Amino acid sequence: MRNPVLVELVRGALVESRHRGAVAVVDADGASVLALGEVARPVYPRSAVKPLQALPLVESGAAERYGFGDTEIALACASHGGEPAHVEVANRMLARAGLDAAALECGAHWPSHQPSAQALARSGGAPSALHNNCSGKHAGFLCVACAASVDHRGYVAADHLVQREVRAAVEDLTGVGFGADVCGIDGCSIPTWGVPLERLALAFARFGTGRRMGQKRAKAAARIRAACAAQPYYVAGSGRFCTEIMKRFGARVLAKTGAEGVFCGALPEQGIGIAVKCDDGATRAAEVAMAAMIARFLPLSAEERGALDKFVRPTLHNWNGIEVGGLRAGDDLLQGHSG
Amino acid sequence: MRNPVLVELVRGALVESRHRGAVAVVDADGASVLALGEVARPVYPRSAVKPLQALPLVESGAAERYGFGDTEIALACASHGGEPAHVEVANRMLARAGLDAAALECGAHWPSHQPSAQALARSGGAPSALHNNCSGKHAGFLCVACAASVDHRGYVAADHLVQREVRAAVEDLTGVGFGADVCGIDGCSIPTWGVPLERLALAFARFGTGRRMGQKRAKAAARIRAACAAQPYYVAGSGRFCTEIMKRFGARVLAKTGAEGVFCGALPEQGIGIAVKCDDGATRAAEVAMAAMIARFLPLSAEERGALDKFVRPTLHNWNGIEVGGLRAGDDLLQGHSG
Repeated sequence: MRNPVLVELVRGALVESRHRGAVAVVDADGASVLALGEVARPVYPRSAVKPLQALPLVESGAAERYGFGDTEIALACASHGGEPAHVEVANRMLARAGLDAAALECGAHWPSHQPSAQALARSGGAPSALHNNCSGKHAGFLCVACAASVDHRGYVAADHLVQREVRAAVEDLTGVGFGADVCGIDGCSIPTWGVPLERLALAFARFGTGRRMGQKRAKAAARIRAACAAQPYYVAGSGRFCTEIMKRFGARVLAKTGAEGVFCGALPEQGIGIAVKCDDGATRAAEVAMAAMIARFLPLSAEERGALDKFVRPTLHNWNGIEVGGLRAGDDLLQGHSG
Repeated sequence: MRNPVLVELVRGALVESRHRGAVAVVDADGASVLALGEVARPVYPRSAVKPLQALPLVESGAAERYGFGDTEIALACASHGGEPAHVEVANRMLARAGLDAAALECGAHWPSHQPSAQALARSGGAPSALHNNCSGKHAGFLCVACAASVDHRGYVAADHLVQREVRAAVEDLTGVGFGADVCGIDGCSIPTWGVPLERLALAFARFGTGRRMGQKRAKAAARIRAACAAQPYYVAGSGRFCTEIMKRFGARVLAKTGAEGVFCGALPEQGIGIAVKCDDGATRAAEVAMAAMIARFLPLSAEERGALDKFVRPTLHNWNGIEVGGLRAGDDLLQGHSG
């Protein structure tokens, strides 16, 4: 089976590029709402499951113990741009547990937010692990270790308490047991486990509704959702898709990007979870697909539909600001057969 | 018809992403050597035809009049990284024609070479049109206009003398007449014309051999090839695929990248041209496909084969420098049926 074209790039008279992929929309009972392409094939969720990976931070009581509010919990779910405010909050989270940036094992990279990267260079600075898009998640991991009074060193390894708890939470919500046959190493050095796309959608349906999960876990999921809805800037950053969508729709949409063309989300009021994987790993196409799913399944006012349109059909401009084309969702996404 | 998988990304236990696309390999008489996927569909060549777009600069005598050597002619074919040496040569080309950066109509962007971008920011500078990856090509365009004593303003427009000459050269070598039905606007604001992939390969077979073209054009093509082979750093830049390949193989390989997953090249000694288009626009996959074509059609010593392997099977490392996976050419590329 081959996956359908989810998104096309149009330039002038021609379709210039095409992105294939799969999309699963599932309710909290596991019933399929929409299935496009190979939804049973395992895909690495990468950063798209960060909100689920933050469950141990809240469930263990570590977030409460260290006095974390919406901002810190949102940053624990983030693929942030390395903007100064992101760095500051990551640093503060570490300080609450008596740690500093030296404890982070995610590696360093320049801020993905270009003005922040340029400002850092202008100031003569160099990137640290705090600028890593995953630093909030890793600060949360470290807090889990510290609150449990275990040695935090090596917390990225699969057999460390932190990763065992993170893995158990994701296994619980997806209903899948992970083995070496689906294991990869993520950009920030923690394990990433391949999950069938339909099970990622199921996990987000559960996470978004609190249904079909233990009471304590449901409460933690609600806390994390509320934090992301209240502080969406800390989940991604200036101008970023996740941030803009959650700023606009608040608690009605949870949206989280992952590397290599993955996108997960939930529409809690509709009781559904959404998972997207673009075959080729393109973020630009995963964003359009996610926007198209929101447009399709979330009841919208005319004004909201208009605001969403720039994400469903983003325009492309060249270096002189001339509009040269745009991306558009394919027919399958907009009206393909529901499953 | 759907295009085959050209390149896969493997991470840990799974194939994480897949890039589909088409590849055409053609000789100077138009005979197909290899055809994978939809080679008759028009694709925008984008920057991949810059060596062909430089023909008017040499044929018109402008390059000679302004005293251009290998460096300037190579930069006229470049998608460069905006490194200081690239900027300096672009500036010098303009000065020879009595112009400066203000005449460039390509727009400004930060250097794609990250250390150069960071150095520019550290120095308190801002990017100009000279940093645009196309500034060498545009400097060449301006020289064509000045040498012909026509007003250079508006030289990016389809009906300006410069673009008419550029278009005529590409139409001649591809054997295709361009109309509004295949016209788009490129990142640097000039027209880009859709060409069937097999015709792009034909054009590069001709350009690479000087066969099936007028004597003056063949001489100009030889001059441009010699410049790229002598100064490959000026065709792309530090660590870039085109530069590394041409540094290694000299005049035996002409390789030129284009945006949205296009790659064109020629193996002059084998008398063939190569054109690649990844459906999804991914440069990483187009590079692997191009490397695989070189490995397949260029006779190589064991040492050369070893050196090429890092381009055919590049490894991926995460922020901690851990090898987490790699790209690999698909079976069709390595041994698919020749046409």
